[in-house]
Amino acid sequence: MKIAIAQLNPTIGDLIGNAQQILEAAKEATSQDTRLLLTPELSLCGYPPRDLLLNPSFVELMASSLQQLAQDLPPLLTVLVGTVEPNPKAHFTGGKPLFNSIALLEQGKVKQIFHKRLLPTYDVFDEHRYFEPGLESNAFTIDGVRVGVTICEDLWNDEDFWGKRNYQVNPITELVQQGIDILVNLSASPYSAGKQQLREAMLQHVAIRYQQPLLYANQVGANDDLIFDGNSVGFNRAGEKVCLLRSFETDLAVVEFKQQKRDLTSGEAAKIPPAPTSLDEEIWSALVLGVRDYTRKCSFQKAVIGLSGGIDSALVAAIATEALGAEHVLAILMPSPYSSDHSLKDALSLVENLGIESHTLPIEELMQDYDRTLEPLFAGTEFGIAEENIQSRIRGNLLMAISNKFGYLLLSTGNKSEMAVGYCTLYGDMNGGLAVIADVPKTRVYSLCQWLNSDLGLNSFRHLKSKIQNPKFPLIPANILTKPPSAELKPGQVDQASLPPYDVLDDILHRMIHKHQGAAQIVEAGHEPTVVNKVMRLVARAEFKRRQAPPGLKVTDRAFGTGWRMPIARR
Amino acid sequence: MKIAIAQLNPTIGDLIGNAQQILEAAKEATSQDTRLLLTPELSLCGYPPRDLLLNPSFVELMASSLQQLAQDLPPLLTVLVGTVEPNPKAHFTGGKPLFNSIALLEQGKVKQIFHKRLLPTYDVFDEHRYFEPGLESNAFTIDGVRVGVTICEDLWNDEDFWGKRNYQVNPITELVQQGIDILVNLSASPYSAGKQQLREAMLQHVAIRYQQPLLYANQVGANDDLIFDGNSVGFNRAGEKVCLLRSFETDLAVVEFKQQKRDLTSGEAAKIPPAPTSLDEEIWSALVLGVRDYTRKCSFQKAVIGLSGGIDSALVAAIATEALGAEHVLAILMPSPYSSDHSLKDALSLVENLGIESHTLPIEELMQDYDRTLEPLFAGTEFGIAEENIQSRIRGNLLMAISNKFGYLLLSTGNKSEMAVGYCTLYGDMNGGLAVIADVPKTRVYSLCQWLNSDLGLNSFRHLKSKIQNPKFPLIPANILTKPPSAELKPGQVDQASLPPYDVLDDILHRMIHKHQGAAQIVEAGHEPTVVNKVMRLVARAEFKRRQAPPGLKVTDRAFGTGWRMPIARR
Repeated sequence: MKIAIAQLNPTIGDLIGNAQQILEAAKEATSQDTRLLLTPELSLCGYPPRDLLLNPSFVELMASSLQQLAQDLPPLLTVLVGTVEPNPKAHFTGGKPLFNSIALLEQGKVKQIFHKRLLPTYDVFDEHRYFEPGLESNAFTIDGVRVGVTICEDLWNDEDFWGKRNYQVNPITELVQQGIDILVNLSASPYSAGKQQLREAMLQHVAIRYQQPLLYANQVGANDDLIFDGNSVGFNRAGEKVCLLRSFETDLAVVEFKQQKRDLTSGEAAKIPPAPTSLDEEIWSALVLGVRDYTRKCSFQKAVIGLSGGIDSALVAAIATEALGAEHVLAILMPSPYSSDHSLKDALSLVENLGIESHTLPIEELMQDYDRTLEPLFAGTEFGIAEENIQSRIRGNLLMAISNKFGYLLLSTGNKSEMAVGYCTLYGDMNGGLAVIADVPKTRVYSLCQWLNSDLGLNSFRHLKSKIQNPKFPLIPANILTKPPSAELKPGQVDQASLPPYDVLDDILHRMIHKHQGAAQIVEAGHEPTVVNKVMRLVARAEFKRRQAPPGLKVTDRAFGTGWRMPIARR
Repeated sequence: MKIAIAQLNPTIGDLIGNAQQILEAAKEATSQDTRLLLTPELSLCGYPPRDLLLNPSFVELMASSLQQLAQDLPPLLTVLVGTVEPNPKAHFTGGKPLFNSIALLEQGKVKQIFHKRLLPTYDVFDEHRYFEPGLESNAFTIDGVRVGVTICEDLWNDEDFWGKRNYQVNPITELVQQGIDILVNLSASPYSAGKQQLREAMLQHVAIRYQQPLLYANQVGANDDLIFDGNSVGFNRAGEKVCLLRSFETDLAVVEFKQQKRDLTSGEAAKIPPAPTSLDEEIWSALVLGVRDYTRKCSFQKAVIGLSGGIDSALVAAIATEALGAEHVLAILMPSPYSSDHSLKDALSLVENLGIESHTLPIEELMQDYDRTLEPLFAGTEFGIAEENIQSRIRGNLLMAISNKFGYLLLSTGNKSEMAVGYCTLYGDMNGGLAVIADVPKTRVYSLCQWLNSDLGLNSFRHLKSKIQNPKFPLIPANILTKPPSAELKPGQVDQASLPPYDVLDDILHRMIHKHQGAAQIVEAGHEPTVVNKVMRLVARAEFKRRQAPPGLKVTDRAFGTGWRMPIARR
């Protein structure tokens, strides 16, 4: 029996477009003699639909779309589609009004419904807000094969693998006890750096521990801040990988389930693409997909970026060029009297390397004019943060004016280290529809640029491939990587004058943000107490800025944004 | 036996300050011969602590603060304190690592711990993110009196009152079956317009249905977007109100539990303050508290506001003046060539009525300068949204420069109707640390100002009380209330040229946002289909702006902000 995994890229709420994607995958699967087609969690509405689920009319529309899809699908193909189902008991016995479900569509009808049992409610996940957990094991029989159905988190509770339980129930154990021939998992599991290694280790562990072949179908594509990497995968009973779908792209794979052996074999179509050669390559691909999908799904054609000559905006410009094509990226240079000569020069070299359009709009006159306008209030005060921010906000205004005038998406260029300690100007350089590298620490910004300048990086930079004469040519001008980082908002300013070196800062931040360590623990790890306290104070004080930041693409296991919910007014 | 309710105003995370508040309430209670003191839910850390709870060092600090508090409290007073407790089983059987708990402190020790059973995970609440629900009924005995303990939501699941169940368990029924003499509820229940009426009806219903005296202790004060109104209250077995604490202020009341009658009587100290005379008065008081607490808890002394001569900024200036005092409010007038003469005049009259400081900073030169700077890109294009927004963003920059220079909190002035349809400029008039009336629809902005101009309003406007010669004198100049609303960003612009009348708009928005109605239902209610579709499209398209808005004070049952989680990129 042939089983296909459709690794789809739905747009949130686009029921017609998403159903169309499922139909096309079904046609392709049928042309390969497939009997069963797997699609990701909530494939009909896209994941995460968030508060759209609170609108009953949206839920009703999903129900009718599902019926229509059942009728439109090839009748002899059994298809698992992710959808939501009303909880009929909610009114009488309490509980949330919906289930996060998988519908089994066959012969024009919805034949069976399975409910997700473990509901993630942590980090970016809010499933208890909408859903009631399913109480029963989910399985069905097709051509004599008993298929156990799990939905995303259902599979992430193996105490043997994790060393602890996260939920009281383990749906896998229950399914195995009841007897199944194969386990499938329909997922919408967001990307974070290195996550696929963890996923594969866990899935392999489950296959081996329970001696079950396993097919994992994941969503791909970016929805707002969340990037889904795809990487759908299959393992046989022995824990050998039988298929792996492409990362960061839609894909479809067909695998063969041998009824006699009760196991998966890798069919002809099941090629296993090479894994990314480095974390930098992986993060790069994630960010490119994130920019491409946000732009496309918000119906923008082009992006505009403020180019300072620094490393952050250089990286964002490169990502945007790869994501959208050079002809869809506009760079704006806005030098002030505090900008160094090399900044302008470096920015223009980058523009040339990327082959994008640029304009230079000096801001000195506007700065003077703000000073004049504010003279009645500011007379006699010293140049300080207020004046520094005015420069950044003039640039932010110019960029937004261009965005408004031509309908381009403004991409903001701040990195995670800056966002953490508040070294960024609200309504200035923070302006934008999408914060491309808001979850990339400064040290990673450097390594991404170094990778991009390497052979591997240049080769994967598709847009330039054809043009590159000498692949050693540095895409990101060398000077951008070597000069000391500076916001250039006053003469002689450099970041490290008021911050610890970025490797120290990033380690402290990593301990705070990702490991939830307190000051005492961080000091114990070898950091200066005064530095640790200063950083912690800066992070707390910058909360009001982060609250107003654009969505930032999530590439680590804890990003500022949806999964970071901190009070502002606090001690 | 005397029981005291301490209606406290904690600052999030300020364990020392909050413990001090509890100690002071305990001293006051002891001086009135009280045996038992009730404090609100999570009174030690303040509600909601949000992701501070993910830091183990914060949880450890709470534990040691609780022990210290137990030792510091008067030994003969029994005190119920809201705190969190680790879930010792989480590691082995799964579940969240914490409980939302009440600690019973007595004779220098933590004697008993009670866990919250029903965990709200909807609207602004995320309790499933942090907490495991308690499984057992909570009660203790003091001087022979059996006290049933419930925490906030535990009491909000009476199927008889609501006509449906929200949770499978009803902690009240269980407690009553086990036998109690009095029911207490420790809460942090946020304000929304008219909520106290609902609360009292529900509490009274519970008292009567179960024939139980009932004491309800609520938090007061604002934490970021959430305002807690206090309004702690007691009912006897017959459902008669025996005490009501002040709304929007800290308070302490002592009531008498007669052991013989097994019922509450209203002690001497238990005065019942009059209810607000109108919804306008109630909302006004909530907004004043919201501004005062956000300012204070973020350590600001003064606020700055952009005054346009329109009704929204007029209302915000009045609220700020009442909240902070006239000497702590700075108004900035920033006329452009499109500003009408009356706008400046009206704004200056208001400044005079409020007795606040103002400065006028014309922006024409800056506008011209932006035009000149953008000329290389904009030459040949027509005046449009981009140029309108530039004006708003110049004003936003000037206000932020003043905020940065002098350390004043910038208050933004957009109303809910504008925020809904996107008639506001991101990085322009949306700028600010707090969006004071972001949850107040335009029609309510009018009625608040009308109320403010009435005798009742003027009398409650404490700051002006002493100065007012003629109480009929309109605090908000009449012209501000009567002229057609306009952003004045181009000649002759009025809001209603491109929007339906505000009463129509607000009704459509109310149906969409609060009643979760779809287009079909709203049309059925009598609205024009083209208007409904236009409004729905505008609301969806403005999501990216709302995502970057400052926290807005919540005064309705569904505000944009924490409790509104919509995808941006969607169809």
